[in-house]
Amino acid sequence: MISLIGGTGPEGRGLALRFAMAGEKVFIGSRSQERGQQIAQELGQLAPSASRFISGGTNEEASSQGDVVLITTPYEGQKDTLEALRPKLTGKIVVSVIAPMVFERGHARAVEVPEGSAALQAKSLLPEATVVGAFQNMSAEDLLVPDKSLDCDVIVCADSAEARQVVMALAEKIKGVRAINGGGLANAHYVEELTVLLVSINRNYKIHSSIRITGL
Amino acid sequence: MISLIGGTGPEGRGLALRFAMAGEKVFIGSRSQERGQQIAQELGQLAPSASRFISGGTNEEASSQGDVVLITTPYEGQKDTLEALRPKLTGKIVVSVIAPMVFERGHARAVEVPEGSAALQAKSLLPEATVVGAFQNMSAEDLLVPDKSLDCDVIVCADSAEARQVVMALAEKIKGVRAINGGGLANAHYVEELTVLLVSINRNYKIHSSIRITGL
Repeated sequence: MISLIGGTGPEGRGLALRFAMAGEKVFIGSRSQERGQQIAQELGQLAPSASRFISGGTNEEASSQGDVVLITTPYEGQKDTLEALRPKLTGKIVVSVIAPMVFERGHARAVEVPEGSAALQAKSLLPEATVVGAFQNMSAEDLLVPDKSLDCDVIVCADSAEARQVVMALAEKIKGVRAINGGGLANAHYVEELTVLLVSINRNYKIHSSIRITGL
Repeated sequence: MISLIGGTGPEGRGLALRFAMAGEKVFIGSRSQERGQQIAQELGQLAPSASRFISGGTNEEASSQGDVVLITTPYEGQKDTLEALRPKLTGKIVVSVIAPMVFERGHARAVEVPEGSAALQAKSLLPEATVVGAFQNMSAEDLLVPDKSLDCDVIVCADSAEARQVVMALAEKIKGVRAINGGGLANAHYVEELTVLLVSINRNYKIHSSIRITGL
């Protein structure tokens, strides 16, 4: 089971939809059980053949049930959310999808994170979990259109080679995605900031951009 | 004329070679006139049909002669170099190619620049020039092999739309390159840091990676 903490936002919904379309069981977590269930139902309507793989409820349920747990809260919500869920995440692979940014006069700018990145902040909040950074560069808008084909690489950063491998395999279950070994968790900083650049490119070109690594 | 300040390093040599192969006149600048001339001659031997487009000499000559001037010094050398060349760069388009990084125990890490990025540092050192950030993500190793075909995007960041357009057109003279409007000069920070991630990916895969933006 893949579960999503704060899974009712665009990025969480989009990833849940694509994993379910790949035949993976997903659980949408929310602060409100009702809202988690409602979003699960709505996603099922978007992709009826995948609906049996999607369920939803609270973030606590998501934390307990997931083998791999994705964090898709806004950056501002991560700290309080993870502090409360910490006991339930012991021993789990926790994937930080967050790219901290703000908009100022229409321009995206990275938010400086005291720990170095959202992923490193998650690691400091969850010392008994194995934190991995991934999926930060994917366009939520594209993920949420079931018949939109994807064309992007997911750069996976982790200090545990085993956890990195699990998340790379998971990423490649999504059609159109290639997983890239991005090295240690400290490198998630660069992947998170790359999202800010992509948001800026999206604005210049009126597109939903993503990236491919060339030269492989 | 495209000139390169600190053009004798791998990135400078590689870009000079590719521009000359595209039929653009290039000038390799160096602290030593003899070294600038010698590298120009060596590049001409690498690509004989392009040799008539390549000359070399001092950084001062490079600054005076170039219509567009690329900075390809190491980050550590940028400040002293540009302070000395400032009067000669008035009114020019100056392109920052620098990606500030250090290696610690085999791992690349971005160097924090007080001004925010190498490109913004160049801007603060050269208030009478128009600074553009570009070419930071290209693999010097690939650039330096004349028959190696390139497959990458060059993200161009500038506060002047006109200068950005000039540098985008210049980038696309290199075969295999597509130029991308990366927005304002502040975004060069993300492009510079992306280079650190690519260096890490190169190490993991034993490749020379670069990037393509998808979704356009």
